[in-house]
Amino acid sequence: MAKKYTEKYTIPSYECDRSDYLKIPTLVKILIKISGSQSEELGVSDAYVHSFGLGWIILQHDIKIIRLPKSGETVALTTEATSYNKFFCYRKFWIHDEEGNECVLMETTFAMMDLKARKMGSVLDEIVAPFESEKIKRIKRGEKILPVEEVKAKKDYLVRYYDIDDNQHVNNAVYLDWMLDVVDIDWMSDYIPVAISIKFNKEIRYGEIVDSSYQQGETELSLHQVLVNEAVCAEANIRWQPKD
Amino acid sequence: MAKKYTEKYTIPSYECDRSDYLKIPTLVKILIKISGSQSEELGVSDAYVHSFGLGWIILQHDIKIIRLPKSGETVALTTEATSYNKFFCYRKFWIHDEEGNECVLMETTFAMMDLKARKMGSVLDEIVAPFESEKIKRIKRGEKILPVEEVKAKKDYLVRYYDIDDNQHVNNAVYLDWMLDVVDIDWMSDYIPVAISIKFNKEIRYGEIVDSSYQQGETELSLHQVLVNEAVCAEANIRWQPKD
Repeated sequence: MAKKYTEKYTIPSYECDRSDYLKIPTLVKILIKISGSQSEELGVSDAYVHSFGLGWIILQHDIKIIRLPKSGETVALTTEATSYNKFFCYRKFWIHDEEGNECVLMETTFAMMDLKARKMGSVLDEIVAPFESEKIKRIKRGEKILPVEEVKAKKDYLVRYYDIDDNQHVNNAVYLDWMLDVVDIDWMSDYIPVAISIKFNKEIRYGEIVDSSYQQGETELSLHQVLVNEAVCAEANIRWQPKD
Repeated sequence: MAKKYTEKYTIPSYECDRSDYLKIPTLVKILIKISGSQSEELGVSDAYVHSFGLGWIILQHDIKIIRLPKSGETVALTTEATSYNKFFCYRKFWIHDEEGNECVLMETTFAMMDLKARKMGSVLDEIVAPFESEKIKRIKRGEKILPVEEVKAKKDYLVRYYDIDDNQHVNNAVYLDWMLDVVDIDWMSDYIPVAISIKFNKEIRYGEIVDSSYQQGETELSLHQVLVNEAVCAEANIRWQPKD
């Protein structure tokens, strides 16, 4: 078993939507943040990783939402870097409520970027050793993501100053903001996501124009894509269910 | 002296810009949030205020930034509802760093909205009594805000799903996101705000198209406005200085 790391988090109302549910992009941000906190605690901070000419990149999130927490709740955010192979690191994240019920499970695939060559690098043992992750041979595939085939609705977004993080590209959580903002407002009022898979193909930079579009798949499944100059930068599938 | 209320806050990297400075809209959100926490602690929550058919609205923020905090810092957020008169409530907010140095002072003017009539209501003594604010006769004016006379740059924004808060209109912090996003990127890289005054005239709703524009005033002063259908919804003046 790899080392687990937990932090408490009280959900402020400004991180919630009009119905007081935690915003989905924030859900991703608060979880990714604790993997950074664990890395710092174990002496393998981003600065240490940079010293090898490497940086973490996120390839995919697979999120299961059993119950989306609401404003004012104090939840426990937990993470565990479960396993890794030559090119990929697999990490799990959980959100538990005050009664200890599991609310969210997120499984994320990370890789290393060779910062000079701007391509994927190998995972170094010295970077992952402190997490006590299992070294595996096989490649684990995230959920398969169905592509958009027929666009139902789209909107364009000009990348904003504050969308860019300290990696100098758009933060991975912003893609979900673009994807969800395109969804019909009545649908957003009546339904809630229960499963989200999002795959990142290509980084997006300041000043680029993003085309976010979606399609209704089966009744309670939506298919999403984010394009820049017609290149697919991210794709997602979201499964929904009616709100209580 | 009115009652003070303080909370600690550790600044997560996802609330920071590409240079690791706390995002300005977040600065406003975390401060406004603690006024809500104080109100709840004193038994005058938003729900209590709503029971009188009233809701709080924000008219103006005057922000002085001595030093903008950075990612990872643990700061103290403090607020005090200093005084009020028949129509307005005046509140101060501070951010202090770990050494106790004052980093930010924000002075905010609130008013009560009569939720049914959609116009300003009177401030009720029972709502403000628990804060032990001083009752005053005079009207305190916020900083005078110079209007935009000649637009230097503008961008349009379609209000997003997540811009709307539980009051069903655009959260006051989002206006600053629109205002700062229009500013020249080189200026944003080289300069930092040291004083911001923003005045809210008109609420903005989902689906509206916002026109954010600005003008360089004197060398280190920028003048901002946010329009919907040519009506001025908010105006701001920002004073800047070169980053260290």
